[in-house]
Amino acid sequence: MLETARIKEFAAEFDPQPFHLDEKAAKASVFGGLAASGWHTASVAMRLLVTGGLPFAGGLVGLGGEIAWPKPTRPGDTLHIESEIVEITPSRSKPHQGIVTVRSKMFNQHGEAIYLLTAKLLVFRRTRAE
Amino acid sequence: MLETARIKEFAAEFDPQPFHLDEKAAKASVFGGLAASGWHTASVAMRLLVTGGLPFAGGLVGLGGEIAWPKPTRPGDTLHIESEIVEITPSRSKPHQGIVTVRSKMFNQHGEAIYLLTAKLLVFRRTRAE
Repeated sequence: MLETARIKEFAAEFDPQPFHLDEKAAKASVFGGLAASGWHTASVAMRLLVTGGLPFAGGLVGLGGEIAWPKPTRPGDTLHIESEIVEITPSRSKPHQGIVTVRSKMFNQHGEAIYLLTAKLLVFRRTRAE
Repeated sequence: MLETARIKEFAAEFDPQPFHLDEKAAKASVFGGLAASGWHTASVAMRLLVTGGLPFAGGLVGLGGEIAWPKPTRPGDTLHIESEIVEITPSRSKPHQGIVTVRSKMFNQHGEAIYLLTAKLLVFRRTRAE
C-alpha cells in the first residue's frame, strides 16, 4: 500500500512538484488531490515484478520499453500487477541470450489500470545442467 | 552523484536483485559490477528534469512514453540530462490543453548515454492574464 508519507518523501527526493508534495496544492492541480509520482508508481511495479517471481534465471534486466500512467496513484491505494509474456526473440549473434517482451498492467483496489509497462528484458538460456 | 549506499537502499525497497545490492554478486552478473536499478536512474532523471526548469507552467505531468537504458548507471557516476521538445499537439476537444513530446538523454561523466526518455506530457495553454 502506498502511504501518504512515503509518497511525499519519494517526491521530495525525485519529483518535487506541488501535486506530489502538498494536499492543498494537489487539490487545485489537474490531479484534484495528492498523487504519487509516476516514477514512484513505476518503482512499486518493479518491486511487485521482482518479488512476484517472473521465471527468468538471470533476473529482470530491462533494456527499455513503453510506459503509460492512465490514472494517478493515490495515498492508500493497494496495487497488484498482472503480466504476460508476449514475445521471445533469440539473439541471432549470441545463441545463449535473447529478448523477452513482457506486458504488465498494474491495477488499484477499484480494478482500474493505473500503470502499463511493456518491457524488453535481456534473458539467458538455461544450460543443460541447470 | 549516485552514491553506493543510496543505490543499494533504493534497490532494497524497489528492485531487490543481487546485481543492485551486492558488489560480489554484481561482479558475477551480466552487469560486471554494481549497477543502479534502472528505475533509480529514471527517478534521478526526473529530478533533473523537474529542477532543471522545463518551461511548462502546470508542471511536468507525464502520460507515458518510451524509455531505454543503453548502459548501466554506476556508483559515483555524475549525470546530466539534455532535452528537446519534438512535438506539440493541441487537443482537438479541449482548446486549453495539449500534449508535448519531450525527448531527453541522460549522460554520465564519460559522455555515454545511459538513459533515454521520450515522454508525452499534458500541458495547459497560458491564459492572457498570465
